[in-house]
Amino acid sequence: MLDQTNDPTLRSWVDAANVADCDFPIQNLPYGSFNVRGTQRRLGVAIGDQVLDLPAAVDAGLLQIGDAAGALRASTLNAFMAEGPASWSVLRLALSHLLSSGNALLRDDDALRARVLHPMESVTLHLPFDIAEYTDFYASRHHAFNVGSMFRGPENALPPNWLHIPIGYNGRASSVVVSGTPVRRPWGQVKGSEDSAPRFAPSARFDIELEIGAIVGVPSDRPLTVGEAFENIFGYVLLNDWSARDIQAWEYQPLGPFQSKATATSLSPWVVTAAALEPFRVDTPAREVPLPPHLRDAGPMLYDIALDVALAPEGGRETVISRTNYREMYYSTAQQLAHHSTCGCPMRVGDLLGSGTISGPEPGSRGSLLELSWGGRDPVEIDGGTRTFIEDGDTLTLRGHAQGDGFRIGFGECCGTLLPVKTPQRDS
Amino acid sequence: MLDQTNDPTLRSWVDAANVADCDFPIQNLPYGSFNVRGTQRRLGVAIGDQVLDLPAAVDAGLLQIGDAAGALRASTLNAFMAEGPASWSVLRLALSHLLSSGNALLRDDDALRARVLHPMESVTLHLPFDIAEYTDFYASRHHAFNVGSMFRGPENALPPNWLHIPIGYNGRASSVVVSGTPVRRPWGQVKGSEDSAPRFAPSARFDIELEIGAIVGVPSDRPLTVGEAFENIFGYVLLNDWSARDIQAWEYQPLGPFQSKATATSLSPWVVTAAALEPFRVDTPAREVPLPPHLRDAGPMLYDIALDVALAPEGGRETVISRTNYREMYYSTAQQLAHHSTCGCPMRVGDLLGSGTISGPEPGSRGSLLELSWGGRDPVEIDGGTRTFIEDGDTLTLRGHAQGDGFRIGFGECCGTLLPVKTPQRDS
Repeated sequence: MLDQTNDPTLRSWVDAANVADCDFPIQNLPYGSFNVRGTQRRLGVAIGDQVLDLPAAVDAGLLQIGDAAGALRASTLNAFMAEGPASWSVLRLALSHLLSSGNALLRDDDALRARVLHPMESVTLHLPFDIAEYTDFYASRHHAFNVGSMFRGPENALPPNWLHIPIGYNGRASSVVVSGTPVRRPWGQVKGSEDSAPRFAPSARFDIELEIGAIVGVPSDRPLTVGEAFENIFGYVLLNDWSARDIQAWEYQPLGPFQSKATATSLSPWVVTAAALEPFRVDTPAREVPLPPHLRDAGPMLYDIALDVALAPEGGRETVISRTNYREMYYSTAQQLAHHSTCGCPMRVGDLLGSGTISGPEPGSRGSLLELSWGGRDPVEIDGGTRTFIEDGDTLTLRGHAQGDGFRIGFGECCGTLLPVKTPQRDS
Repeated sequence: MLDQTNDPTLRSWVDAANVADCDFPIQNLPYGSFNVRGTQRRLGVAIGDQVLDLPAAVDAGLLQIGDAAGALRASTLNAFMAEGPASWSVLRLALSHLLSSGNALLRDDDALRARVLHPMESVTLHLPFDIAEYTDFYASRHHAFNVGSMFRGPENALPPNWLHIPIGYNGRASSVVVSGTPVRRPWGQVKGSEDSAPRFAPSARFDIELEIGAIVGVPSDRPLTVGEAFENIFGYVLLNDWSARDIQAWEYQPLGPFQSKATATSLSPWVVTAAALEPFRVDTPAREVPLPPHLRDAGPMLYDIALDVALAPEGGRETVISRTNYREMYYSTAQQLAHHSTCGCPMRVGDLLGSGTISGPEPGSRGSLLELSWGGRDPVEIDGGTRTFIEDGDTLTLRGHAQGDGFRIGFGECCGTLLPVKTPQRDS
């Protein structure tokens, strides 16, 4: 539901927040976990080029949010999310009020501002929430067709269940890292088409997957409707599901991806709330076959979020290698969460649901190098060279934003640099 | 390594611990989390028909274990496991000494005994550790062949990778419950061979999987050798991986089991330590093809643990429907954990690794009803009837022990009763 915090005419007294291409205008107000060198981690809100220190703002009496204030003293968002949707709304409204251009309380108090605002470049950002569990889906029609064609041939590209179930698998929560964390090229068991036997080797086809991650903010332990599931999502981040394609191809039958997906999963540090994305809701694409009643769309539950992927070689300039949009997904997060809960699976605060790779219909809108280079056959042009898969030293950066009228709800960046493989330590 | 705590001639002053078929002799000393009605959860050790209250024993000065004592004040084992293998040995030795027949300290102090020992029937047992993440494997040659035959036909029964990789998938940690917790028959999407379209329906083929669960006690973030992996396991429990076969058959391609395995996973409440099982180490079976060097056996790392499964209809007597042994596994937990770590996947204290269903070569040694009834074709005889899959009100109980000379290292029971399906609440 739209409210005054979504008003496109709102402006903040933090000047940088009012620039049209700023990711963090007053309509956004995303949450993160940060620290200033030498001090403890705490929760903050991005506004323009500044970070509002939430516990400091509470201590200064700037946020009147009742019992939920205690939860803002934690170093991650889980306790606050557990306070529930009413508290989420109260805090968002209080922040919008505090930071809006007409509010003098903090705007005109230099000493107080110095205590509760930190320049963004002075803070270190951490994972914004403790990941309870991580589930990854496979829900873009174009991605499923592309990958299915390469792994199983175009005639078997789409599995028989794909148009009926938002297919997902459990990922590895311990692998989740915050944007900026370097990623080490993994070892794994592989067997290429020319290999007579499997080999233990560094992955030679290391890849990204461009995704949106949704964060469960309300626990449940029974089958949810799609409408209920939508309301249980606290917010969204950019997610890069790093994937070792050669390991994946050899291991994934019959029980799904395992080590190929467990090296790292990177998240953007700012959680953009469902409330901030409310004006950008869009419908899922037309259904090729009707969904079963318990998974049917119950309103527009995707978002119009422009996304891109950039690749920069070590010491080189970056090239945008893909441009797509979250609205390309065949299934919404609400449908995925509803499916996830059908068997009574307990969902917890802090569960992370990856959308699945977001690929559009055009070759330049594919969300993985596997697809962009068509399995390595068609190298992708970058500044000063080409790529099939990621090379050591490459930095991959995901970016995304929903475009409003004169402002945008941005996600910031989700980036990571690939480090060369290390020889495993051996005790014998 | 065997030490004095494994001595088969040891006896305890707790008389019930010295009975030959007692699961909890002084050579066992498994850890659990319990409470006595109206009091807080705490850690305990099973000895005969008693539970030793660990924090109370520490407070009474009965256990001189240095800095690790603080970790025994937690309600679950994670903090103690995190103290590391040296502390595990110190506590085990202290407990063995305290409870051995020749030690008068507690034996002869009635008032103290009343404070630190609780009759087992007076306590409620809880999950003994916080499950960080749950991984389930597929590592019995007989089970893989049986299930593969039914799902894909005998000619494709064993996937090409199976003899080279201990195949596993990430399970759902939030579904893990302690023995005794009832399990609700789940809903899910199914499509039988006669269905023209998928249906949302209660599972009609709800099943068990008899497994051993291993608990990671030492964290890691690099590829482990098999020898290192073995040393990182704190202990073992019985594990029932409840499985909805009809949901599984429809959903599991291409990314593996998901909702079919997320209703519940039951654990026996007592963690039997690797130290207690040390005398029962056995080799894995002969290799059909050589394993890659990083997964090769580095000594006997399976255990000789006799296992059985009993089924009791509501109000009826139980029938043992399967008898098998953990030594039937093709891969050891150490090999599974070594594989799990190959890509650099961070492993944490409290990670739970399910062995995979343990099936022996004979029809009566299969670890699931799917196999015992051969997909429902051959009903299993039970007292007063037959079963293909689980019926409402049935109680399934797993039991297991390693047989020593005059004593046994028992696991207690892992049981659960199936409740009838509930109509989902719907908000529209």
